Amino acid sequence: MNSKLRILPLGGLGEIGKNMTCIEYDDQIILIDCGIMFPENDMLGIDYIIPDFNYLLDKLDQIQAVLFTHGHEDHVGAVTHLMQTVKAPIYATPLTAGLLRVKLRNAKLLADTEIFEIQAGDTLSIGHFTVEPFHMAHSIPDCVGFGITTPAGLIVHSGDYKFDHTPVDGWPPDFAKLAEFSQRGVMCLLADSTNATRRGWTQSETLITEAMDEVFDEATGRIIVATFASLISRIQQVGDAAIKHGRKMAVVGRSMKDNVRMALEMGYLDLPEDLIVDLDAARKLPNSKIVYMVTGSQGEPTSVVGRLAWNRSRSLTLEAGDTVVLSAHTIPGNEETVTRIINRLFHLGANVVYEDLTNVHVSGHASREEMKLLINLVRPKYLIPVHGELRHLVAHARLAYDLGVPEENVAIIENGTPVEMDSEGLEIKERLKGGYIYIDGSGEGGDVTRRVLRDRERLADSGFFVMGVPTQKREITGEIEFITRGYLNLEDELFDGVEHVIREVVNRHGAKKTGDQLSHLIEESVIRYLHEETGKRPFVFVILK
Amino acid sequence: MNSKLRILPLGGLGEIGKNMTCIEYDDQIILIDCGIMFPENDMLGIDYIIPDFNYLLDKLDQIQAVLFTHGHEDHVGAVTHLMQTVKAPIYATPLTAGLLRVKLRNAKLLADTEIFEIQAGDTLSIGHFTVEPFHMAHSIPDCVGFGITTPAGLIVHSGDYKFDHTPVDGWPPDFAKLAEFSQRGVMCLLADSTNATRRGWTQSETLITEAMDEVFDEATGRIIVATFASLISRIQQVGDAAIKHGRKMAVVGRSMKDNVRMALEMGYLDLPEDLIVDLDAARKLPNSKIVYMVTGSQGEPTSVVGRLAWNRSRSLTLEAGDTVVLSAHTIPGNEETVTRIINRLFHLGANVVYEDLTNVHVSGHASREEMKLLINLVRPKYLIPVHGELRHLVAHARLAYDLGVPEENVAIIENGTPVEMDSEGLEIKERLKGGYIYIDGSGEGGDVTRRVLRDRERLADSGFFVMGVPTQKREITGEIEFITRGYLNLEDELFDGVEHVIREVVNRHGAKKTGDQLSHLIEESVIRYLHEETGKRPFVFVILK
Repeated sequence: MNSKLRILPLGGLGEIGKNMTCIEYDDQIILIDCGIMFPENDMLGIDYIIPDFNYLLDKLDQIQAVLFTHGHEDHVGAVTHLMQTVKAPIYATPLTAGLLRVKLRNAKLLADTEIFEIQAGDTLSIGHFTVEPFHMAHSIPDCVGFGITTPAGLIVHSGDYKFDHTPVDGWPPDFAKLAEFSQRGVMCLLADSTNATRRGWTQSETLITEAMDEVFDEATGRIIVATFASLISRIQQVGDAAIKHGRKMAVVGRSMKDNVRMALEMGYLDLPEDLIVDLDAARKLPNSKIVYMVTGSQGEPTSVVGRLAWNRSRSLTLEAGDTVVLSAHTIPGNEETVTRIINRLFHLGANVVYEDLTNVHVSGHASREEMKLLINLVRPKYLIPVHGELRHLVAHARLAYDLGVPEENVAIIENGTPVEMDSEGLEIKERLKGGYIYIDGSGEGGDVTRRVLRDRERLADSGFFVMGVPTQKREITGEIEFITRGYLNLEDELFDGVEHVIREVVNRHGAKKTGDQLSHLIEESVIRYLHEETGKRPFVFVILK
Repeated sequence: MNSKLRILPLGGLGEIGKNMTCIEYDDQIILIDCGIMFPENDMLGIDYIIPDFNYLLDKLDQIQAVLFTHGHEDHVGAVTHLMQTVKAPIYATPLTAGLLRVKLRNAKLLADTEIFEIQAGDTLSIGHFTVEPFHMAHSIPDCVGFGITTPAGLIVHSGDYKFDHTPVDGWPPDFAKLAEFSQRGVMCLLADSTNATRRGWTQSETLITEAMDEVFDEATGRIIVATFASLISRIQQVGDAAIKHGRKMAVVGRSMKDNVRMALEMGYLDLPEDLIVDLDAARKLPNSKIVYMVTGSQGEPTSVVGRLAWNRSRSLTLEAGDTVVLSAHTIPGNEETVTRIINRLFHLGANVVYEDLTNVHVSGHASREEMKLLINLVRPKYLIPVHGELRHLVAHARLAYDLGVPEENVAIIENGTPVEMDSEGLEIKERLKGGYIYIDGSGEGGDVTRRVLRDRERLADSGFFVMGVPTQKREITGEIEFITRGYLNLEDELFDGVEHVIREVVNRHGAKKTGDQLSHLIEESVIRYLHEETGKRPFVFVILK
């Protein structure tokens, strides 16, 4: 029996402990969150990435619960992949549960999944653990962190948070609960590190209300606001501005519509019924009387904004004089796509309002001063910085040292590295194998190995060059067939040169070699020739006819 | 005869008027700068982009001069492509001329190129034009802007600049000259818009001196500073810090070495001879006595820092306790690569100092308050915002309106759009065709069309799937050969399924169709089948054997 508490962040490269965290004591496991990561630019053709659940496969019986902190994709997006394997019940606050249900229903997993709706302030007894969700403020309502009392001690998981005293839903973070944990004595704090390199205190979400007001004041034409479909608070703010300025609101895009309907039904959006009109009604209104709520703040080409920018939207066409508001932070890696869309929208005559000189978005995460406050409020013995890239964890750790947390009590770990602890000390164990699974394909799709990714990289750089060569023993008996894509703009001389190379190889070796050997020799010679002539190495294959 | 002055920014998409500007009056042309652009993430396999010179081809005789503002790649990098076609003389300040000579020598074009070394303060008579280079401060020494007196009026081109009162080389911008232009009356100002969305005043380069001092103070192991090979001022600052803290300096990487040697010879670097040691000598020094100057601030995998991060450097291996300083701005689009390298260096145990909480880099471009000062100093009739993406030009233009420049006197144009002007007014003409040329291939290489790029995109997403099918009329006479790369991890069943599809098509149509028709039918059926099974559409080709 292991009498130590084991904490293991699972998930992709990039942000640590963001997508999934595994809390393990003795023979019982609690999972926190199960989100997706967006692929980086060089993960070609990948739609998204999910945590590698391999570690859990021979411990499935031990999993007591899956707790969710809030409803953003990087925390809930992989739930359908998880619930195909894991049979434990889900615990989530009502809004998060609502968002989870939509996903599980679409994947036909809802009937088999047990979901308990919890409230901040509850005390849940789950196996060895006592779980106390507490309210935190973030950019989505109904966001919680967890106090988890284990036989080894109390741990506190911040979830995504900012210390926003004036959040959109009027429900500030539960400072009292954090102080109470502190009085009981906290063994370990897992805390959000996203903005660990950002000085000061993150601005309140209410700042956006003022910025939005200004935008509505100045706009004479239509207003189109793009944000994440799950940013419920932002939709509320735009709705409020619309009411104030006498505009109706139309919601475009399926995910946005689904979420708005659900949030209205559950009371997380407080908007009058007659505010929201459908697209047909919206089109009949004067330009100065309508605001469109759309997706596409990340420049996704298939989103509403993406299609607007490239004139490919059936439902909406951009007009000169429109105001487009991008009200979301650009996810690292999307900067280029987003700025290209912004330039493109300006090119089409729109006024584009984005995170440059205006406050149409503020971060949902705590900055350095808030991070200090959290540590001093909770006064944990150990700190595990989570939710951030390694560089953010390091910055978070250094900030903790400045507050007097001893270096040996801070564990800077990467995904797949377990930490074990008890009151005696903290031990970082060896990193597990595996880590993440690339999900590719719009249908059932499949996972993709690094091998396939490397091949895609080479294809993206140099394309391929396939030759059908009709041979009989030592002779070429007909015309050579060339198939090439993604290589270069090729001149006829190059094909003549390749043909010459092939003839030489066949003449010299044709009689003595097997078909496979001959193919291989031709391929080698052609690769060499193409590299000499063009400096590039496409995939080269021969099919002997 | 056209009595209007024509200004035409040439170059890629992205930043406007950055890489090359064409000033035309009557039958005479002056070119300013000739730089390269770095490809965006989705320009797969592209090394760099050069301006499309097509517009100049039937005006080659009219080109009087090629003026260069300063020696950075985005202003000089395409000179060898230009000088293969254009025979006009080059005018550049000594350091810029030195950097140009290196490039022209490597391309064996130096002997055929006439280079006039100019000084800020000179007055040059070039055809219809009187050219007055004036000193500006930027992040490289010997940087100038140009006053160009044309028969239509005086234009002022700012070049890349910031109003740095304490630049590293001690030579502040020539405010007096700008004021003098103003007194003479300026028809048109072309001004740097890079930081048009940045409030305030850009910090002085000397701030870096303090930050560097702090880094050297705290480092106990080796220090490795990465920056652009052409950031001569930064190399001076690191050298100064090394002297102060009793370290020697080793320069790693060919381009960095070449530039340091040249700058030392020409006096642009003021460092004692015994400061710089070679790699062998550096390795023998204690870790606390050496600083390495290297390239790779943009995370390029083949740069010194890139190789350090992935343990692939022959000359230098990272050790725990090393301090790595990334002293350069991350070029938009490189954010992901750079942060990955930073995380990787932390992972290897290095301390990484970068643009987060320290001042190891400041921008080389003017911020909004400086941009206002430039406009009010020069008091131009017309303004053409240049050097920035469209969104920056728009922000720059709005800033000018706030200063009282009438909207009709500001031309927001994109590359390839000519502006014509005289004292009566400003006219934006129709955009020319063409724009940029993708350069691909390490050897002679070739240019690449959008078609090839689109194919690479599809290959990167879905790969290819080629089948060699042995047929005789209606029958398949042997085993089908499959070649696939970059598609998915495929199970045997999928190949069985494809084989089944092929057999069906051959059975049904084999007897009646030509080979080409049959291939086409097979390809269509297989594409449909693969898409149904996997949701992806790889390139599919058949070779009948």
